[in-house]
Amino acid sequence: VALIFIGCNSNQTKSSSTLEDNPFEFKIDSILNLMTLEEKIGQLNLPSAGQFTTGQATNSDIGSKIEKGLVGGLFNIKTVASIKEMQKIAIEKSRLKIPLIFGMDVIHGYQTTFPIPLGLSTSWNMEMIEKTAQMAAKEATADGINWTFSPMVDISRDPRWGRISEGSGEDAYLGSKIAEAMVKGYQGTDLKQNKTMMACVKHFALYGAAEAGRDYNTVDMSRTRMYNEYLSPYKAAIDAGVGSVMASFNEIDGVPATGNKWLLTDLLREDWKFNGFVVTDYTGINEMIEHGIGDLQDASALALNAGVDMDMVGEGFLTTLKKSLEENKVSIANIDTAVKRILIAKYQLGLFDDPYKYCDENRAKSEIFTTENKAFARKVSSESMVLLKNENQLLPLKKSGTIALVGPLANTRENMAGTWSVATEQEKSNSVLDGLKEVIGDKANILYAKGSNVDYDLDYEKRITMFGKDIPRDNRTDKQLLDEALLIAKKADVIVAAIGESAELSGESSSVTNLQIPQVQKDLLNALLKTGKPVVLVLFTGRPLAIVEENENVPAILNVWFPGSEAGLAISDVLFGDVNPSGKLTATFPRNVGQVPIFYNHKNTGRPLGNKEGKFEKFRSNYLDVRNEPLYPFGYGLSYTTFSYSNLKLDKSSISKNEKINISVNVTNSGNYNGKEVVQLYIRDVIGSVTRPVRELKGFKKVMINKGKTQTVNFSVSIEDLKFYNYNLDFVAEPGDFEVFVGTNSDADLKATFTLSN
Amino acid sequence: VALIFIGCNSNQTKSSSTLEDNPFEFKIDSILNLMTLEEKIGQLNLPSAGQFTTGQATNSDIGSKIEKGLVGGLFNIKTVASIKEMQKIAIEKSRLKIPLIFGMDVIHGYQTTFPIPLGLSTSWNMEMIEKTAQMAAKEATADGINWTFSPMVDISRDPRWGRISEGSGEDAYLGSKIAEAMVKGYQGTDLKQNKTMMACVKHFALYGAAEAGRDYNTVDMSRTRMYNEYLSPYKAAIDAGVGSVMASFNEIDGVPATGNKWLLTDLLREDWKFNGFVVTDYTGINEMIEHGIGDLQDASALALNAGVDMDMVGEGFLTTLKKSLEENKVSIANIDTAVKRILIAKYQLGLFDDPYKYCDENRAKSEIFTTENKAFARKVSSESMVLLKNENQLLPLKKSGTIALVGPLANTRENMAGTWSVATEQEKSNSVLDGLKEVIGDKANILYAKGSNVDYDLDYEKRITMFGKDIPRDNRTDKQLLDEALLIAKKADVIVAAIGESAELSGESSSVTNLQIPQVQKDLLNALLKTGKPVVLVLFTGRPLAIVEENENVPAILNVWFPGSEAGLAISDVLFGDVNPSGKLTATFPRNVGQVPIFYNHKNTGRPLGNKEGKFEKFRSNYLDVRNEPLYPFGYGLSYTTFSYSNLKLDKSSISKNEKINISVNVTNSGNYNGKEVVQLYIRDVIGSVTRPVRELKGFKKVMINKGKTQTVNFSVSIEDLKFYNYNLDFVAEPGDFEVFVGTNSDADLKATFTLSN
Ligand SMILES: [Mg+2]
Ligand SMILES: [Mg+2]
Ligand SMILES: [Mg+2]
Ligand SMILES: [Mg+2]
Ligand SMILES: [Mg+2]
Repeated sequence: VALIFIGCNSNQTKSSSTLEDNPFEFKIDSILNLMTLEEKIGQLNLPSAGQFTTGQATNSDIGSKIEKGLVGGLFNIKTVASIKEMQKIAIEKSRLKIPLIFGMDVIHGYQTTFPIPLGLSTSWNMEMIEKTAQMAAKEATADGINWTFSPMVDISRDPRWGRISEGSGEDAYLGSKIAEAMVKGYQGTDLKQNKTMMACVKHFALYGAAEAGRDYNTVDMSRTRMYNEYLSPYKAAIDAGVGSVMASFNEIDGVPATGNKWLLTDLLREDWKFNGFVVTDYTGINEMIEHGIGDLQDASALALNAGVDMDMVGEGFLTTLKKSLEENKVSIANIDTAVKRILIAKYQLGLFDDPYKYCDENRAKSEIFTTENKAFARKVSSESMVLLKNENQLLPLKKSGTIALVGPLANTRENMAGTWSVATEQEKSNSVLDGLKEVIGDKANILYAKGSNVDYDLDYEKRITMFGKDIPRDNRTDKQLLDEALLIAKKADVIVAAIGESAELSGESSSVTNLQIPQVQKDLLNALLKTGKPVVLVLFTGRPLAIVEENENVPAILNVWFPGSEAGLAISDVLFGDVNPSGKLTATFPRNVGQVPIFYNHKNTGRPLGNKEGKFEKFRSNYLDVRNEPLYPFGYGLSYTTFSYSNLKLDKSSISKNEKINISVNVTNSGNYNGKEVVQLYIRDVIGSVTRPVRELKGFKKVMINKGKTQTVNFSVSIEDLKFYNYNLDFVAEPGDFEVFVGTNSDADLKATFTLSN
Repeated sequence: VALIFIGCNSNQTKSSSTLEDNPFEFKIDSILNLMTLEEKIGQLNLPSAGQFTTGQATNSDIGSKIEKGLVGGLFNIKTVASIKEMQKIAIEKSRLKIPLIFGMDVIHGYQTTFPIPLGLSTSWNMEMIEKTAQMAAKEATADGINWTFSPMVDISRDPRWGRISEGSGEDAYLGSKIAEAMVKGYQGTDLKQNKTMMACVKHFALYGAAEAGRDYNTVDMSRTRMYNEYLSPYKAAIDAGVGSVMASFNEIDGVPATGNKWLLTDLLREDWKFNGFVVTDYTGINEMIEHGIGDLQDASALALNAGVDMDMVGEGFLTTLKKSLEENKVSIANIDTAVKRILIAKYQLGLFDDPYKYCDENRAKSEIFTTENKAFARKVSSESMVLLKNENQLLPLKKSGTIALVGPLANTRENMAGTWSVATEQEKSNSVLDGLKEVIGDKANILYAKGSNVDYDLDYEKRITMFGKDIPRDNRTDKQLLDEALLIAKKADVIVAAIGESAELSGESSSVTNLQIPQVQKDLLNALLKTGKPVVLVLFTGRPLAIVEENENVPAILNVWFPGSEAGLAISDVLFGDVNPSGKLTATFPRNVGQVPIFYNHKNTGRPLGNKEGKFEKFRSNYLDVRNEPLYPFGYGLSYTTFSYSNLKLDKSSISKNEKINISVNVTNSGNYNGKEVVQLYIRDVIGSVTRPVRELKGFKKVMINKGKTQTVNFSVSIEDLKFYNYNLDFVAEPGDFEVFVGTNSDADLKATFTLSN
């Protein structure tokens, strides 16, 4: 084994059982010996597949590169036919017949589309989340793909950032659990199987902390914050065996992640023992030119030396590494190491055994977007919705009478899957209108009116409905649209208003400075409220929104995120009580954009506010014009039933290093519906050598409790749960007092205390 | 000398000429030998003077502590009579007769009040700024005070933070120049003189980066950012010889500044060679309990061990250090070091020679708020105003016809001095109405109406007009107030609207999430605009505001900050053209709060926007809903005349390490008024081993140019100006290309290039 890893750092000879089980590694040096420098560099090259006519792959630009051995893999290509055609060139026409790896942004499902990741995270259901990844892998591999650029585990505390929709919210503990579930779901227990695909954890690292919430902007934070608040989800993915890591666009300590050796080597490989390969993000190397790091040759050499193995799209490696080698700016050992990592990945995927392993036409026909898959997606979608308000138990609705469905999001299949859903056939998603009709049948009367466009401004509307996620502009006047809606509202017993963001208002390069619902839709909503009819707001969004007014005026608010391909059915399931909502927010909803960043696990500061009512106090840490608390805290979400917590018990009042403490609480379903509850455990480290958060999530259990029943929920806390990174970045638990909070969200005040002894 | 500093670190024996010139240091050990432990700890104690009736000092609580030697100094006390009474107790009744030091927040002038510091900084006139500090010292020392908690040099990029009003804006280069000027102004060349006072640079460090702009909130950033973007103004104050440093409330790397040994010892004393003493902010030690660092004893020991010498208000040192010494949590050497530093400061101030040096009743009568001082303040105030817009040269106004003066800020002497003006006699300030009347005399007709309250909400209005900065609530209805204003507006040739923030809407613990002018005043302004009469907006503010609408609709906007005690006269000077405005913004005005933080010297990122028109581009770093550029950039400010720039020349195209480059530019006054211009020099380091800002201020000259004249302005740039802190925090200049921009604000596009050779 040692021989193989000449050129790699010594840590890499350890751990990875995948490697040690396989004889492949013994062949690597032989393969390397056969490769020309150009072929080696070619393995590090990951172009986007681009456009080519089926049957003409060989004659395409990319085809000729594959033939010359200048391509290690492709992405942005799907279907067995297209992928097979490319693979054939590599296998039949290239000198060394090294198979290609095929990547794609399989983010929240493949064709069967689940809620956007932020929505998925609000299910707090790890088993279910793992299964979504498993199903996505099954569908994607059936379509020829064997590598996904997922999971995205970037912690974000800034709802202005459009890509908060692609992550799991603000909490590193929850984010780590989800990262692990996703990696296991995609990769299974054996990457060689044709139903598993390689995952790629991204964006390493800290991409979610973009300054001012503007995508691609500078990131800056202390090491203390990195280690304690941002890094653990990446590490969790690596500990779960993720095969690849994507370097992020942003800089860290002034050096772009793509060229940051501390990040990609010291931390990732030496400290965390990562054995897979590192790929850049789209043109990540080239963008270091704009970052001001040097020209393409400098940037490429910097990236390789920092620890990048594969260059996505920009061909910096392909066009400059040879020159850099000649000029001693990079070493052949570093190139060889990168090549080996990529070849091992291909071997792990079984591509050396059978390059067409993922090219089974029959699977493509029978395993994608199946009835079974869609049924699961429907379940996942409904379980991801968050009931934000339900005054006087307006929800669930009865399947009777007349329902007025209003809003620009009500009748758009194209917007149901949300951002990054490249394999979704948008027109096959069901809209709210579709869903309502199917679920209600002829039990009730459904009237529909659009009510308004997405935004008053046409230019803006174009920007937020691009990439085929059209909501065709209605050219009637705003007043005509509104009047039509008011007309049907008058005839109805209840109004369901499907409004909020369009799919492209969040996601990559969709940052905003205004967190409110677009004004035209607010105006529509207010007009509907004035009718005096009960209004249910079905809120579409890819980010936490500032909906103080809506929270004040609308009796019921169901946050559905972008629910995926089964959106309409899932929404209907919840609206009519076939599913009792159980989602809990994973990112704080602020009162206004001026509160950002706002998150539950903040520090206490030296001058915390002295009252719980949010009254202004001079010379305490608060604003003159808004209270400190968010609109909805982390972990918040209602149910059609109610849960009451009692009898919080710790089995010890003090533990030593090697002991565990058992925490139990009784949760009673005290309402009128059976329902699921996410029981949340928070811990506060009262005193620390560095300041500690006011509380941190340290456990959660999602439990089904029938009405009238009480369930005892148990948590076990060990010293590992009490550890944090101190000033020297040692991961330690400090003896002292701890407070335990258990409850229905991060404001939980049922409290107990224990001590960690010396 | 060596003997004296046993217990100090070795670096301290170097430098400070003040020490080496003086025999006092040889006495210190003798004094220390005489002191009991209680008396030593007493020297480290800085209580607030509190209330006492003159003549009753001895019987006051504080008097009895002084008598026992338990007080090192006092603050929040003024007038020679009161201070003398306290000093007498120390000198006549305490065992060792060690004089007290008397501190006060002398922030922007003493009784003669200059603009708030943010306003003062917009003058860009270093000589003038130095003189304001000198004058403040003269007045304060005439009133018994010998130590000021100024300058506040915290860089801030967040206008939500109320204390942005107390600093010099967003730029560390300009901030450093101002820090130096202030220290020199306060301290002069000899602290012993009775007209100079000791300065205290604050808040060390990074206080201005409070998260979410909420005062006292957590601060977090990388070392790279600290060194390159935040720390230099503190260092400039220290290099200028500042006598004391105040530790900030916030944490750094998770450890509160007050207990942060890296900050207060490694950086401040070892790297920067600071020789003075460190004082906490108000109850800074006690607040470490809320930070979660430990109890008062722990916090006090941590503070002393970190490098704090004097404990403000909280008496953590007084009540716990003895116990900590017994328990070996602190050493007597550390206590002795702190005592020595404080005694040396008192010696430097001449207090051992004459404890009543600053207690001259005659000076108090003749040197405070003099005609001469007020005249200077009037000049400073007018030079600090920033003309933001002046369509069709509406300004300057003619002293004729009828002028309608409207707005809740028009007739309030109490709000003219702004935040932190504890020695100002508010009722002696002149209001806008006062100033207009005096300057116009009987040349024009002035009509006045309040027009609106400060805010629709009474509770909110109370919060922002507290501390005697009343704007009495007018109990007429909003409509009655407005109607009155519209009535006089109709009779007028021009409307002057004095609106914006009240004084207590910025400053300490006055953070906000909404950066707009209060709605009632916006409504007033819009109603005035509808009259069709020309409107001049005289904008009062302690922070950058988001005034996009006002910029679009109001023809002329003069930003006056809070101009100080001569406000009304200075505003009138500018409105009528007796002074041509020359202020330039030192903090970016955003378009909306969602853009925050927004600042001129940002990084380029890997995906900068490709167009200058601010059009949205997908997959570039921008927002969907607002362009990247601020409303007004750093350095921005208009004049009644116009300046044109030409003939930018560099005397070399390449320099080596030891060479300087001379940069010259011709500035022509191409308009119709004589005027001052702040010629600004920005440099971009094109490529760096860490990413470099898109440009950085590296020089400025404020020049007076008569109309029609051209002046050649020269800058000299040396390698020192090209240095930055690299990844290893070495301060280096890297060979390579540099771009030079010279112009009227940070958007300057007149450009040249040069190279730093190897
Ligand atoms: Mg597989
Ligand atoms: Mg602890
Ligand atoms: Mg003096
Ligand atoms: Mg203070
Ligand atoms: Mg350079």
